[in-house]
This record gives sequence, C-alpha cells and structure tokens, in this order.
Amino acid sequence: MILHGYFRSTASWRVRIALGLKGQEAVQVSHHLRKGEHRSPAFLALNPQGLLPALEVDDGQVLTQSLAIIEYLDELFPEPALLPTDPVQKAKVRAVAQIVACDIHPVQNLKVLQRLRDLGHSEDQVQEWVAKTIEEGLDAVEQLIADQSGRFAFGDTPTLADICIVPQLGNARRFGVELRWPRIQAIEAACLELNAFKRAVPSAQPDAE
Amino acid sequence: MILHGYFRSTASWRVRIALGLKGQEAVQVSHHLRKGEHRSPAFLALNPQGLLPALEVDDGQVLTQSLAIIEYLDELFPEPALLPTDPVQKAKVRAVAQIVACDIHPVQNLKVLQRLRDLGHSEDQVQEWVAKTIEEGLDAVEQLIADQSGRFAFGDTPTLADICIVPQLGNARRFGVELRWPRIQAIEAACLELNAFKRAVPSAQPDAE
Repeated sequence: MILHGYFRSTASWRVRIALGLKGQEAVQVSHHLRKGEHRSPAFLALNPQGLLPALEVDDGQVLTQSLAIIEYLDELFPEPALLPTDPVQKAKVRAVAQIVACDIHPVQNLKVLQRLRDLGHSEDQVQEWVAKTIEEGLDAVEQLIADQSGRFAFGDTPTLADICIVPQLGNARRFGVELRWPRIQAIEAACLELNAFKRAVPSAQPDAE
Repeated sequence: MILHGYFRSTASWRVRIALGLKGQEAVQVSHHLRKGEHRSPAFLALNPQGLLPALEVDDGQVLTQSLAIIEYLDELFPEPALLPTDPVQKAKVRAVAQIVACDIHPVQNLKVLQRLRDLGHSEDQVQEWVAKTIEEGLDAVEQLIADQSGRFAFGDTPTLADICIVPQLGNARRFGVELRWPRIQAIEAACLELNAFKRAVPSAQPDAE
C-alpha cells in the first residue's frame, strides 16, 4: 500500500494511526501542502479532489477520504476492531468521528483559511475563525462522550473516534486554541501511550519540518 | 423512531431518503433553522452539537450525524443495501458521500455563511463562496464516478453516494449555481423516479414554506 499524505495533514494523521493499530506498513509519499504539491497533475490523476490522504491499494485502486479509508482498513484487517459491534454504539462512534471530519476540520483547513485571507482577513480574524470552529465542535464531542466509560472515547480500546480526536486536538494546540476539554485531553494522554498513536504524530514523520 | 429535521436541511433530507428506501416511517419533528430552534435548550439536550438531523431510536437513544444515522439504518434494515459488498467499491461510495458531507456541505451551511455575513461580506461574496465550494466538490465527484457504470452513481441501485448527491444538487440549484455535471444530473433524474427520493424533497415536507 502507498499512503499519499503530509506530516501535518490531520486527515493523513488519522490514517497513519489506523495503519499502526492494524500493524500495517504503507510506503509513505509526501505531498507538501503549502507548496501546493497536492494540486500537481500527477496527484490530481490519483485523486481528482486534490486532497490528502489517498491510499493506493495493492491492485492499483486509489481510495480517498480518510474515514472511508479507515473503514476499509478495518474491514480488511478486522483485528483490533475500530468500531463497536453494537449498532447504536457504532453510530455514536461514527458520529464523533464525523463531528471532527465534517464539522471541524474542513471548516478550518488550509484551503478555507486561505480563502479567508484572500477575502482580506487578518491573521487575528483567521485565528478566531479556527478557534470558534474547533471549540464548537470539541465542546459537543466532550458532551457526547461524557456518559461513556473507559480510557478511550468509547470503552477500553481505541476506536475511530479516538483516531479523529487526537489529530484534531493536536491541531487545536498548533493554532494556540486554549484546551478546555478534560475528558478529551485524558483520552489523548491514554492514546499517546500506544505506539500506533506515538508513531503517527507529525513530528515523527520523515517529511516533518 | 423520531426524526428531528428541517425541510431544507440537506443532511435531514439524506436521512429522509434513506428511511424511504428502507420502507421505514419516522415521526418527523421540525426545528426551524432560521429561527434558531435547533439552538433551544430542549434540542441541545438531545444533540449538544445543535445540528440537524437527530434520530431518536426506539430505546430512547439519540443518534446524530446523517452518515452515521444512515449506516445505522443500513445495518438494522439490510434490504435494500445502501453500500456495495466489495470493500474497494464500498470505500469509493463512502468517499463520494464524504466529499459531500465533509468537504462541501459544512463549508457552505447556514452557520458558516452567517459567519461570513458577520465578517461584513456582501451577499455576492457569500454566493461566490457557496458556488466555489459546491463546484470544487462536485467537479471531483463527477470525475470519481466517471468510470462507474449503471443508472446510479455506483451501479443500478441507489447507494449512500446517491443519497448525498441528490440533496447537494438541490442545494446547488437553490443557490443559483450553474450545473455543469452531466453524470451527476443524470443520476439525480434516475433517483427522482423513485418514490423514496420523490417523497424526501424539501417541497414535499409538512414544514415546507
């Protein structure tokens, strides 16, 4: 498998964690987001959306969208499972993942922030936009997992929810957002005791700057 | 089941289609987005994120996030299946759904557009933001499904991809975006021949204005 990613891309980071939890290695190919390498004709031929990550699987097919990729990995390599078996719990795990992957990350990714700058907004305004987006989303996550027990978001093994939470919290920190989510922060600490999470952090990647 | 939604919410629309395809009825409770009814304490107690849709299932649990809800329905009522069985095809269907649900819709929903207005942008600028977001996303979808055969996005039965495409195209039309996607438009036409899609359109809802 070939993982097209970038050390700082939180969506790529999610897939790196999932690969690690599954004990799978992928060849990593880096595309520098700030240099626009994800908009090169060669990469657009792989993923017309021009977004990272993309996973080339062994028969040459290209998979895109981090959550779809992770569920594919979960199906191909069932152990350890990244989703609970109970349908309601499974829906709740997916909902937390989607709060991050739909409602937080795409609203504060590089592309949207560049559009705000192009509209003439200052770095303070951009920063405020990022903070508000992350705060609203993680406030909801914190409440939605409040009645769940265990070291991780849903129980004592990491799920798709934790895989999304940890990079998003990393991103919050990078943008200087004040962390106000005790449960989420405890989950992050528990995750970072695991090798799969440790090895997936941006600073541990070969393309880290 | 109780579906908390709003006639014009494209995420609620997706769930209405899925319920219809599964032959399931839910009691519909409307929350007027422009009047902020989704921010009422009563609704926030159900869904701390304050977003539509939310599905109350029979044991009183509340499910949120449209794609998580639809996959729950697909698991509980397996026929007709909304996802292919082949893992690569399944990942591709989910990826198209996620382009709409992550990269298009949340970047041009009511909340984000209000933030743009609050930042002082004109209706023309808001409209341009919406058009650009939809165009980039649907351009990618059109390319990603170009090599698929069948009347729908992936084959001859509707999937999660079609369930996301049809409301997003409706939204594009509502915002006056010029449609330039022959394959997607043909898919919409095929979908709208089905009762489940016909009955789910905003104008057919009891809370339509």
